[in-house]
Amino acid sequence: MTDETSETTMEELDSVLRRAAEAAPLLASTAPAGRARMLRAVADALDGAADRLVPVAMAEAHYPETRCRSELGRTTFQLRLFADVLEDGGYLEVMVDPADPEWGTPRPDVRRLLVPLGPVVVFGASNFPFAFSTAGGDSASALAAGCPVVVKAHPGHPELARLTTDIVVEALAEAGAPEGVFALVSGFEAGRAAVLHPNTRAVGFTGSIPGGRALYDLAVSRPDPIPFYGELGSVNPVFVTRAAMAGRGARILEEYAASATLGSGQFCTKPGVVFLPEGAGTESLVADFEARAAAPLLNDRVADGFARGLDALAAHPATKVLVQGVRTEEGWTPSLLSTDLDSLLEHSEELLNECFGPATLVVSYPDERRLLEVGGVLHGQLTVTVHGEEDDPMAPALLALGASVAGRVIWNGWPTGVAVTHAMTHSGPYPATTASTHTSVGSTAIRRFLRPVTYQAVPEALLPAELRDANPLGVPRRVNGGTPSV
Amino acid sequence: MTDETSETTMEELDSVLRRAAEAAPLLASTAPAGRARMLRAVADALDGAADRLVPVAMAEAHYPETRCRSELGRTTFQLRLFADVLEDGGYLEVMVDPADPEWGTPRPDVRRLLVPLGPVVVFGASNFPFAFSTAGGDSASALAAGCPVVVKAHPGHPELARLTTDIVVEALAEAGAPEGVFALVSGFEAGRAAVLHPNTRAVGFTGSIPGGRALYDLAVSRPDPIPFYGELGSVNPVFVTRAAMAGRGARILEEYAASATLGSGQFCTKPGVVFLPEGAGTESLVADFEARAAAPLLNDRVADGFARGLDALAAHPATKVLVQGVRTEEGWTPSLLSTDLDSLLEHSEELLNECFGPATLVVSYPDERRLLEVGGVLHGQLTVTVHGEEDDPMAPALLALGASVAGRVIWNGWPTGVAVTHAMTHSGPYPATTASTHTSVGSTAIRRFLRPVTYQAVPEALLPAELRDANPLGVPRRVNGGTPSV
Repeated sequence: MTDETSETTMEELDSVLRRAAEAAPLLASTAPAGRARMLRAVADALDGAADRLVPVAMAEAHYPETRCRSELGRTTFQLRLFADVLEDGGYLEVMVDPADPEWGTPRPDVRRLLVPLGPVVVFGASNFPFAFSTAGGDSASALAAGCPVVVKAHPGHPELARLTTDIVVEALAEAGAPEGVFALVSGFEAGRAAVLHPNTRAVGFTGSIPGGRALYDLAVSRPDPIPFYGELGSVNPVFVTRAAMAGRGARILEEYAASATLGSGQFCTKPGVVFLPEGAGTESLVADFEARAAAPLLNDRVADGFARGLDALAAHPATKVLVQGVRTEEGWTPSLLSTDLDSLLEHSEELLNECFGPATLVVSYPDERRLLEVGGVLHGQLTVTVHGEEDDPMAPALLALGASVAGRVIWNGWPTGVAVTHAMTHSGPYPATTASTHTSVGSTAIRRFLRPVTYQAVPEALLPAELRDANPLGVPRRVNGGTPSV
Repeated sequence: MTDETSETTMEELDSVLRRAAEAAPLLASTAPAGRARMLRAVADALDGAADRLVPVAMAEAHYPETRCRSELGRTTFQLRLFADVLEDGGYLEVMVDPADPEWGTPRPDVRRLLVPLGPVVVFGASNFPFAFSTAGGDSASALAAGCPVVVKAHPGHPELARLTTDIVVEALAEAGAPEGVFALVSGFEAGRAAVLHPNTRAVGFTGSIPGGRALYDLAVSRPDPIPFYGELGSVNPVFVTRAAMAGRGARILEEYAASATLGSGQFCTKPGVVFLPEGAGTESLVADFEARAAAPLLNDRVADGFARGLDALAAHPATKVLVQGVRTEEGWTPSLLSTDLDSLLEHSEELLNECFGPATLVVSYPDERRLLEVGGVLHGQLTVTVHGEEDDPMAPALLALGASVAGRVIWNGWPTGVAVTHAMTHSGPYPATTASTHTSVGSTAIRRFLRPVTYQAVPEALLPAELRDANPLGVPRRVNGGTPSV
């Protein structure tokens, strides 16, 4: 392991990306089953190293042990899920259209599959040292796609990044991966240079809006622009209808406090703004927030950013501070602020800014039909949550509002906790992400690192195995546009 | 119809995009079968107006009648293909993951489908006044996705754009489409402003590298960047192995001349550079080019650009002019140039520039294994073609080279003529396109204008029909990540 303060030089970066480019065709031509074995080997190695990894994560991210262990479990689960995806083969989106003289345009035999883009640079998140960092979702989906990965270490957990990388590199090598398919670089300038490097074919990023936008701007300024998949920021609005509040208000407020303060509010899915009917009675909520213990934030940079954001919200003439969080030796206690619907609509740009950390804003509304006006001021969101009753007159319109601005619409639940499944979407219009057409969580995240290629009139023997008539790999295929089958 | 020289004012543009945004949720909530009816109504109306449309296209684009009629046929075929896609429903990529307490992460019921992005601005191509313009592939796929379309008229065929728009708008209205789902704007400044307008959610573009890059730069400079799907330029290399040349050289050269001069070379898929073994004997090719009649180019701008490009190629010390095309009253006769492999590798930036029009470059190679060096100097391509024999020692490597730089790899055929099918890919790494992860031709072109949304724990009655347990629309769905079924 290298010195903790070392930054990758431009020469080292160039060498890392040269080796990644050399490894790219080798990894791409590994059969999906081979890549599945590599991902499982990495998962096993990380699980086996839990007792070495977890203490480092605890020390660097200031999370309790249970959180670190469960996040590591999520990380290795993710790697194994992508191994399953590779074995299924549906992710290749294979289509076979045999030649057809009766077709409306001249139609030779055309067969399509998806191929990997090439080396991917991954910027890990501060708040998920395992699941969205070195061996996290972006890396797992890129490797699964067949793309070498270069991780830019997050400065908040450099030691964990190095230790994880050592384990990943060793496991990949033992599983037969080509040399150069996984590497770590460090330092602000190395990160910028990696985005601009000619060999880089795509970027995955999880972090703040300003940081993500700066790197996005670099990616699209290249002589050859590349896809930049950035998950940036979200306030994750929660709408609670009158009927829901009347029926189970106490439980909703209890769950709200738990979700908003989980992990010291350091989730991109934290419910940052919650709409409650006027007169809902927030005394229990206030008491709940006041009773919560202080907890540390990830690092000084996050703490400083949070303090600035909270100060701005608290100082805004349209808000009232219900519970003023304080900084203690143990960390921060959570803050609760309030405003009303008219003020929110008038000052939406200031009040709907993500405040990353333990603070949340309650918005009281007079007439629940007016909640729909919020759709006009919301930017893109990762999630929108609706608490309502099944026969709630507001439910259909609020769910539709959610689908129009967010990647995930939640009913009678809370946005924290993103299930890693096939049908999950962790995305949304800008600034929630820079690429709302794709997701960064769930098995379809692999699609971000693939592009279609069509083979026209290529003889059976020269086709990739996935496209041959005999379908030796048993890949699901759409023939003539029909429903996929093996 | 308005005055031919009229340009859309900023007030008109704003009004068009306001109406498009108002129409967006109405169009999005139309059942797919309803949108299928709209697309078929447009196709029928355009077919019915062929005798009005074709003469205008002939006059403005200087194409013969047969070409105009077949291109119109391709256009209405495309619209009907997307109607089929809507009725199939597979394009929604529906996934259903029921709640599962045994799953590796907490897993509530999550269900995913794709939803339309919102208003799409389409920049039509000069060389396809029907199939890649007003009612062409971008418009058809965006409307199919459920996105209102604002077309920026190409200055090369303004009257056809207006006539087509009138027919499309009337057919859509009669088929029950919401007002504002389709509109035409004109003028350079209106085009720029449309890319920057807050209501625009994506852009489709077909045209030159400089024009496309300028608009791409605008799209990504927005406060909220939007996807820009640009099909820009390609030289479409063709590799002819020694074995292929020995076996059927005369036919290959004959077909090459036909493909390179089709439509006066004004195809983005024109074979711009063809690699032949040294001593292949190009006398018949020269005779063929010399015998070809002059044909008009699309317009003066295209002709001027072509003249500049041809002059630069012809003046380059590394090239030899085998046939010098001339400008006559009827238009241009085709040009044929040559160079050798070493010169091409040395001067690739100048010699592999797309020269849009009737000119093509023959490259003679000494040792066919050296053809693989071309992979190192090729930028992204729409197509790569290989002429070889099934047991050709070079075939696997050349096909792999093709898949690494292009969206379509063609065996023993020619790149001109892009079949509109499900498995087609018309895409490729930059500068072939600005978005190699998607295609602009074929039924999967619809994916460009859709984004995923996941519904979490939403009750049956409040789910979109496509996600309900009963699957009333009969949409193919992946359950628990399995192979899709209805």
